[in-house]
Amino acid sequence: MTESPVARRGRKPAQGEPVVDRALRLLSAFEDRGGALSLAQLSARAGLPKATTLRLARRLTEWGALERTGDGQFVIGLRLLEIAALSPRGHGLRAAALPFMQDLHHATGQHVLLAVRDDTEAVLVERLSAHRAGRVLFRVGGRLPLHATGVGLVLLANAPRDVHEEVLAGELPLPEERRGLSAAELRRTIARVRREGVAVSSLRLPEPMSSVAAPVFDARQTAVAALSVVVPTASLQPATLVPAVVAVARAVSRAVQRSPAAR
Amino acid sequence: MTESPVARRGRKPAQGEPVVDRALRLLSAFEDRGGALSLAQLSARAGLPKATTLRLARRLTEWGALERTGDGQFVIGLRLLEIAALSPRGHGLRAAALPFMQDLHHATGQHVLLAVRDDTEAVLVERLSAHRAGRVLFRVGGRLPLHATGVGLVLLANAPRDVHEEVLAGELPLPEERRGLSAAELRRTIARVRREGVAVSSLRLPEPMSSVAAPVFDARQTAVAALSVVVPTASLQPATLVPAVVAVARAVSRAVQRSPAAR
Repeated sequence: MTESPVARRGRKPAQGEPVVDRALRLLSAFEDRGGALSLAQLSARAGLPKATTLRLARRLTEWGALERTGDGQFVIGLRLLEIAALSPRGHGLRAAALPFMQDLHHATGQHVLLAVRDDTEAVLVERLSAHRAGRVLFRVGGRLPLHATGVGLVLLANAPRDVHEEVLAGELPLPEERRGLSAAELRRTIARVRREGVAVSSLRLPEPMSSVAAPVFDARQTAVAALSVVVPTASLQPATLVPAVVAVARAVSRAVQRSPAAR
Repeated sequence: MTESPVARRGRKPAQGEPVVDRALRLLSAFEDRGGALSLAQLSARAGLPKATTLRLARRLTEWGALERTGDGQFVIGLRLLEIAALSPRGHGLRAAALPFMQDLHHATGQHVLLAVRDDTEAVLVERLSAHRAGRVLFRVGGRLPLHATGVGLVLLANAPRDVHEEVLAGELPLPEERRGLSAAELRRTIARVRREGVAVSSLRLPEPMSSVAAPVFDARQTAVAALSVVVPTASLQPATLVPAVVAVARAVSRAVQRSPAAR
């Protein structure tokens, strides 16, 4: 070791770090799609030459981040699931919340969602759905806009003010209603959700669904997640679900506060 | 681009690929533990200098594979959950199986497990547990030995012969019973599980629990997963659960065969 740390730090980025970024780009190539990708598809989606793609994909396969199917295509590997299961905001939170979500699911027979905020979006970390529950478009691991979903509104209303300002300054599309939400409307909604501790919202497509969402707080009273029940608007007055959702979100908060994994 | 692909391929491994391995080693440092790691802990567990660790951890944090907590420690990030959710053998399978697992969970009020085989081990991809179900040691994303668990025995019995030989040639510890399983015993168990299509097994610790497990088959009749119910031995004759577990495993097989995601 004759180099100073500064010299090493100064030199490495030019050679080494782009390789990590390229490897991560291969993983990102599976986003929005899942399923299997051929080497050619993987190379095209990652924007990397085939030889580089194959070399990096082999490293990732050796480690278990990717797996090869019988016909030589690549899929996301099981080892990522094992590692992701250690994410405190993902499975850690989920482990604390799941028994209570199951109770809510028994009681309603519909969709029960658990989401966390990532910057200005919500990420769905769990969804329980009955066989014949109304159709919704959300999937676990998927991203939802904060301004247009029940869990998103709860996470937004309980986020720091700079997150409010960033979201309010951006586009607020409501594609299903073919219009945009105004910043003034969203400000009013944020204030109401903060005041009432619950968000009641509705979606018209793919079928009319209503959502009742409430926050989950950690020991520092930070809203670390939002829990919701989503029901077909025709089947149930959403207001009748408010007490159940609020009570279960409080029970999940207590479980989160006790759990060392879900910090 | 004046170099030939061969020249590039010949040169890169010496510089570039170890960087990918080092980055993956940082992720592996969270295995067996979860929770938050300080820079010093991460560096020690990955066996990398602190400066390298910090540089790579920052890349991984930028991409979202890691996140930093308020006090500067690192945790596994949400983006890994998003990507892992695309694993066909993890969440793809889980999405197909979950409604049926919930039915079984309602019916029994105990633990319902879903596992897949990774080489000579089983990986738990889902666990539903009631608030007051008996205590079991398994966690989602964790690994289980094939020879000593219900789901493991089902996956082993339905694995190719070379997997049998590899497992039979290795150590077969039964730590809870303070003895080893003999290869002859395991051969008989494999034959019985194959013949009967179900594995009934028991564990003495942490408390006496029994497991009833059955295979999930894909469209090619490959056993892609195993489903089990784990109950306290004192509460229920495991044999009474066999019809329910077998029926639900068949229902999950049909769902998997219909689902494009769970190939």
